Amino acid sequence: MQNLTAIDGEAGHSVIDSLKDVCPDLARYIIEFPFGDIYARPGLDLKSREIATVAALTALGHCAPQLKVHVNAALNIGCTPDEIKETVLQMAVYAGFPAALNAMFVVKEVLAERALL
Amino acid sequence: MQNLTAIDGEAGHSVIDSLKDVCPDLARYIIEFPFGDIYARPGLDLKSREIATVAALTALGHCAPQLKVHVNAALNIGCTPDEIKETVLQMAVYAGFPAALNAMFVVKEVLAERALL
Amino acid sequence: MQNLTAIDGEAGHSVIDSLKDVCPDLARYIIEFPFGDIYARPGLDLKSREIATVAALTALGHCAPQLKVHVNAALNIGCTPDEIKETVLQMAVYAGFPAALNAMFVVKEVLAERALL
Amino acid sequence: MQNLTAIDGEAGHSVIDSLKDVCPDLARYIIEFPFGDIYARPGLDLKSREIATVAALTALGHCAPQLKVHVNAALNIGCTPDEIKETVLQMAVYAGFPAALNAMFVVKEVLAERALL
Amino acid sequence: MQNLTAIDGEAGHSVIDSLKDVCPDLARYIIEFPFGDIYARPGLDLKSREIATVAALTALGHCAPQLKVHVNAALNIGCTPDEIKETVLQMAVYAGFPAALNAMFVVKEVLAERALL
Amino acid sequence: MQNLTAIDGEAGHSVIDSLKDVCPDLARYIIEFPFGDIYARPGLDLKSREIATVAALTALGHCAPQLKVHVNAALNIGCTPDEIKETVLQMAVYAGFPAALNAMFVVKEVLAERALL
Repeated sequence: MQNLTAIDGEAGHSVIDSLKDVCPDLARYIIEFPFGDIYARPGLDLKSREIATVAALTALGHCAPQLKVHVNAALNIGCTPDEIKETVLQMAVYAGFPAALNAMFVVKEVLAERALL
Repeated sequence: MQNLTAIDGEAGHSVIDSLKDVCPDLARYIIEFPFGDIYARPGLDLKSREIATVAALTALGHCAPQLKVHVNAALNIGCTPDEIKETVLQMAVYAGFPAALNAMFVVKEVLAERALL
Repeated sequence: MQNLTAIDGEAGHSVIDSLKDVCPDLARYIIEFPFGDIYARPGLDLKSREIATVAALTALGHCAPQLKVHVNAALNIGCTPDEIKETVLQMAVYAGFPAALNAMFVVKEVLAERALL
Repeated sequence: MQNLTAIDGEAGHSVIDSLKDVCPDLARYIIEFPFGDIYARPGLDLKSREIATVAALTALGHCAPQLKVHVNAALNIGCTPDEIKETVLQMAVYAGFPAALNAMFVVKEVLAERALL
Repeated sequence: MQNLTAIDGEAGHSVIDSLKDVCPDLARYIIEFPFGDIYARPGLDLKSREIATVAALTALGHCAPQLKVHVNAALNIGCTPDEIKETVLQMAVYAGFPAALNAMFVVKEVLAERALL
Repeated sequence: MQNLTAIDGEAGHSVIDSLKDVCPDLARYIIEFPFGDIYARPGLDLKSREIATVAALTALGHCAPQLKVHVNAALNIGCTPDEIKETVLQMAVYAGFPAALNAMFVVKEVLAERALL
């Protein structure tokens, strides 16, 4: 839960809250498995973990809400806007321009909300 | 072309060679766009670029040959085996266990070939 | 057409209607092939068919409108809200947490509309 | 740039413009690589190129904004509404009915905007 | 671990074993999360869980090894060959014929190995 | 069935045959729906239909056997090797380089088998 707060901030908590009435166990698994287990592991620093997640969510293409959470998370743990943009841009090579383009507009939205554009 | 050699080594060249008789222009675009343009950009270090690529290829799930090239590339430019394994493992969260499992077997194959297992 | 009515109810008919002016043949194929042929087949009961469909639409990740129709359909033919939630939750294992999460919010929307939350 | 104007018209320019403040280089790559390089190549006529793109964007399923641009582009370079609808309809076979259905509603939207429905 | 044995039999154990030298923690997560947590949950019977998994792995399309494990698992826990074939066949509607076709050949392989064809 | 023979030739028949013992109804649906219904429709010429299919199978990325059948089909109904290569190459833009690369190797295999390389 500490990891969730440190990494995802308010956005993470709002996802957890919105699961309360429909499937609290999904919320519990998200807290336990990705955040309790995976992000707490040694062997890969947190910045690299967020870059990997931003890359994967961009490539998968149907995860805009999660991408928004993780662009915020990446900024929260110290990634620069440029590092995030470069990660998304690079996905044009591996997942095509539409995936990169749609993700870049999510990045734009987050940067605008944080007055970082 | 220098980037291709430094990053992908022999495996990259063998992909380029095998395109010679069917579509040399695809080879040329691969040399120019991902390697000439993207990997040469400032704003994100090469280790992070390879972690992003390994993450995306794991998540996409139908890119085993390219994943093999980029696990090698990641090792070539200084990622540790642990960093690569952690990147792949983390994808279980975002793309599911089958994608992570299939990618981990590619990692195992590369590490075995390089006597790093 | 009877199958369509029994399974999808109003939502199915509204999809068919909205195709009238752009491509009525797509509507005809939907009535003939999935509903006339597939859902009418013996060998698998209708509840299992809807669970399979909810699972697949969750995993594919870009089918929110169809998922909404089939969460309703699953309820119409006797699946409990818990059976539907468990199906979606299980997809976190095979397609990742973002796919499961986005689908669970569609389930929440349908259950709220039917006052089943 | 000429290709972009001829093919995508206003919609293409508005995408390029909206990238200005977040990642102008992604805009530049889109102008250079797909439009400068690919669409300018001999070996496949422009109508076939647009049909290929509409087919791929329909099948990928998470590219509604790009599909809208390319349904417009296909009409701009001389595809008939029927050719576009048939391309999308055919994708039911290869990518499933939900992908074809969601794409057909994008086609409907574009045809309505151009008073071609 | 008991769930893994009951459901996946030898095939499951062989996956776990093959992860020992490359990433034992991925094996541990597979035992803990899908099998310890998800398949042990009430709310959906085991036959329905396997049908959901076969449907999702068919639709995702890049999971042949996992599909093979789960076609076996489905048979182990009491699904009939017909129920499995119908699940795969139905995916032609949602994920297209190629996905259904490739999965059906995996089903054929398993049924042949178990002399059920 | 005539369409199947004209378009897919031997390869199509071998797919149909290999389904005989596991799921003849899937074979029947393939003959009836894609070939009986879709490819027989007016509104889009057969060459454009094959280009659309090659594009989609390249973009989907997990359909190598079907892509092989349709590269052959495209050649059978009069597409040139260049038109097929250009279609696949263009998919680098929309589905990324790995998808285009893997498909190009399928094209290479077919062209070599037909001594067209």
